Amino acid sequence: MSDSNGGVALAGPETPPGDESRNGHVYAWERRLLKKVLAALGNPPVSGILWNGEEVRPTDRPAATRLRFHRRKALLKSLLDPELYFGDEYAAGRIDIEGDLVRFIEQAFNRPGAPQDPRSALRRRHRNSLTRSRANIFHHYDVSNDFFKLWLDDQMVYTCAYFADPAMSLEAAQVAKMDHVCRKLRLRPGERVVEAGCGWGSLARHMASRYGVKVDAFNISHEQIAYARDRARREGLDRLVTYHEADYRDIRGTYDAFVSVGMLEHVGIENYANLGSIIDRCLTPKGRGLIHTIGLHRPMRFNRWLEARIFPGAEPPALSELMTVLEPYDLTVLDVENLRNHYAQTLRHWLARFENAVEEIGAMFDERFVRLWRFYLAGSLAAYTSGWMQLFQVLFNRRTNDDVPWNRAHLYQTNAGGT
Amino acid sequence: MSDSNGGVALAGPETPPGDESRNGHVYAWERRLLKKVLAALGNPPVSGILWNGEEVRPTDRPAATRLRFHRRKALLKSLLDPELYFGDEYAAGRIDIEGDLVRFIEQAFNRPGAPQDPRSALRRRHRNSLTRSRANIFHHYDVSNDFFKLWLDDQMVYTCAYFADPAMSLEAAQVAKMDHVCRKLRLRPGERVVEAGCGWGSLARHMASRYGVKVDAFNISHEQIAYARDRARREGLDRLVTYHEADYRDIRGTYDAFVSVGMLEHVGIENYANLGSIIDRCLTPKGRGLIHTIGLHRPMRFNRWLEARIFPGAEPPALSELMTVLEPYDLTVLDVENLRNHYAQTLRHWLARFENAVEEIGAMFDERFVRLWRFYLAGSLAAYTSGWMQLFQVLFNRRTNDDVPWNRAHLYQTNAGGT
Repeated sequence: MSDSNGGVALAGPETPPGDESRNGHVYAWERRLLKKVLAALGNPPVSGILWNGEEVRPTDRPAATRLRFHRRKALLKSLLDPELYFGDEYAAGRIDIEGDLVRFIEQAFNRPGAPQDPRSALRRRHRNSLTRSRANIFHHYDVSNDFFKLWLDDQMVYTCAYFADPAMSLEAAQVAKMDHVCRKLRLRPGERVVEAGCGWGSLARHMASRYGVKVDAFNISHEQIAYARDRARREGLDRLVTYHEADYRDIRGTYDAFVSVGMLEHVGIENYANLGSIIDRCLTPKGRGLIHTIGLHRPMRFNRWLEARIFPGAEPPALSELMTVLEPYDLTVLDVENLRNHYAQTLRHWLARFENAVEEIGAMFDERFVRLWRFYLAGSLAAYTSGWMQLFQVLFNRRTNDDVPWNRAHLYQTNAGGT
Repeated sequence: MSDSNGGVALAGPETPPGDESRNGHVYAWERRLLKKVLAALGNPPVSGILWNGEEVRPTDRPAATRLRFHRRKALLKSLLDPELYFGDEYAAGRIDIEGDLVRFIEQAFNRPGAPQDPRSALRRRHRNSLTRSRANIFHHYDVSNDFFKLWLDDQMVYTCAYFADPAMSLEAAQVAKMDHVCRKLRLRPGERVVEAGCGWGSLARHMASRYGVKVDAFNISHEQIAYARDRARREGLDRLVTYHEADYRDIRGTYDAFVSVGMLEHVGIENYANLGSIIDRCLTPKGRGLIHTIGLHRPMRFNRWLEARIFPGAEPPALSELMTVLEPYDLTVLDVENLRNHYAQTLRHWLARFENAVEEIGAMFDERFVRLWRFYLAGSLAAYTSGWMQLFQVLFNRRTNDDVPWNRAHLYQTNAGGT
């Protein structure tokens, strides 16, 4: 279990990289630049430390966190484009945050006058062709199954869990998430389900083993599909679950339910109407569908560092944008639930497990990889706790299907549906 | 209680209006026009009867319903623009539907190739200035309190009820709806609530008496406000509830909760950002908000007859459009629930009570008024049962407010919150 705010106290490497001798001296204008960086952060209770060890405090308030620049270059880049370069310089070990990393990033997110770039003005086109999609997905999800095993739950679920009670373990919360999805879809034994973007295949196995449905699950990540197939075989579920190493655009046939957990953010908004046409084509008249995705409270540009370094091609939608999947078709939204506090809690668990496995991860890769992933997990946690990211579950059916429960109490009954 | 499909069997007036002698003869081309009208409806199991009593059946299937044209003019207008004139000719008594009126309209809504006019192409601008808003609202809501008393529940709630159990009485379901709204908002004693568009004031009184909050409720309908004030005084709630005969644009001050039930459809989409700015201005940092509104599953033009004859200026939004209230501001959607089956059930109750009071209503107004309102209630019921209309409840709070329950089980606990 992580502590309550997921804080990570981290000291910098003893010997920062690079030749410090040429950088040793500090000019007066460099102190002013540091103050400018801190002012741009809204002057939180943070002091700055320059490469000669000199500490600069912008205000008289005691500094809970120390921001250490090991190199002049790191300071200059932080000033030039903090959103893009701060993570890079941190990963490279040229910046350290001594104190609570998550809190520090939260403060940066919520600084006064934080820009909310409108998507329309700055949006890069996401031409997520099949080739491009494969390259993007390999970048992140094919890192190594062994790496993800070190800090995900035992089912390898790499999406927001559902903490019906925040004291739940991560394992229990991932099972609760899968049940929450299955209950929303009201899966019945013998039904056929298609899953778009199945990760390591946990939800498909859960639906088959607990709800008695047949599942076709799609994913373009080779490593994930290999793991999923192997595990389904070992668990005797390979008659009920078929994993397809294929894109969602390859979905054929008709199904009683469509489900997609954590894929939409990789689809790209300009491809939403096409995704909707695939859903519309594959759903039976009584079919139901659920999309679970990270999202935004308004159309905004996604964090550029995350997009450049972690999730190339990713684009979390605002709800108005998400609706463009469904609204061109005869599909009606029944239920939207925002689970952003659940993603914060999920990330607290992941970050705590990651820190516990940090030596092993460092040996597997290198220190830079560890710092990159720490910054990504801590930054994601801060994005949810500060409300800059949302997690939407959207349940829908066909307009003409009036087989809808009169209330949502069935989602909250213990021992309900399947389990 | 109404029957299960809300069907209304109705025989036409014995003596149709107008001079029948000139219209008595039927030409061969008029029979062909009648077949064309029935074909445009997708040839449902309906026969047509012309003014000379002649019956025309488009197919060999037995006709469950007979569509009677008392006048040539009614046939021609139905062909010219059925969406606009069919209701008019029915109200005028020149058309009768002998059989199940609701079922007949459902079939018309769901005819093959039913157009779904995109809003952008055909949308009339809704310049709902204060003056225009007042005129629109007087048109419908100031008809007469005595009229609405004849077929609404005892609290005079003229919006979708919540049938947590479909066997509930209308009275119980309207109370359940008010509780559902209050629980979603998590009202606490002593909080301040602002209500935009309060009808006859039932929700404001309910929030004050059951949840111990102070309410400022706004409405521009003079008759409704007079009724609401009088009733609050008689129930000893006038210290907690203040009814303002004023527009939502007159809302000042700050509140712990904003609620609006059944007003958004009268606001007009182009005024949504302005409504959002009022919500953003009036909500405290820990404030919550709820909008309950009729809606559409996609942006479409609203039924032209309803807009012209019943609800001038009305414009139900698709969810993507509804989001333009909130997305320009730092407000985040927490929960969306589609209650369209609840509005169908509400309308079944209203229609049954209306039919029970039809003699009294006829004496109060005239036969044309009775037929106009019957067609409106039956048509609205058909719009919900066929899925052409939706009912959205949207719960939201501020992006930076993480005081959100971990699950929605509190909405489904008996004896929860206030009651």
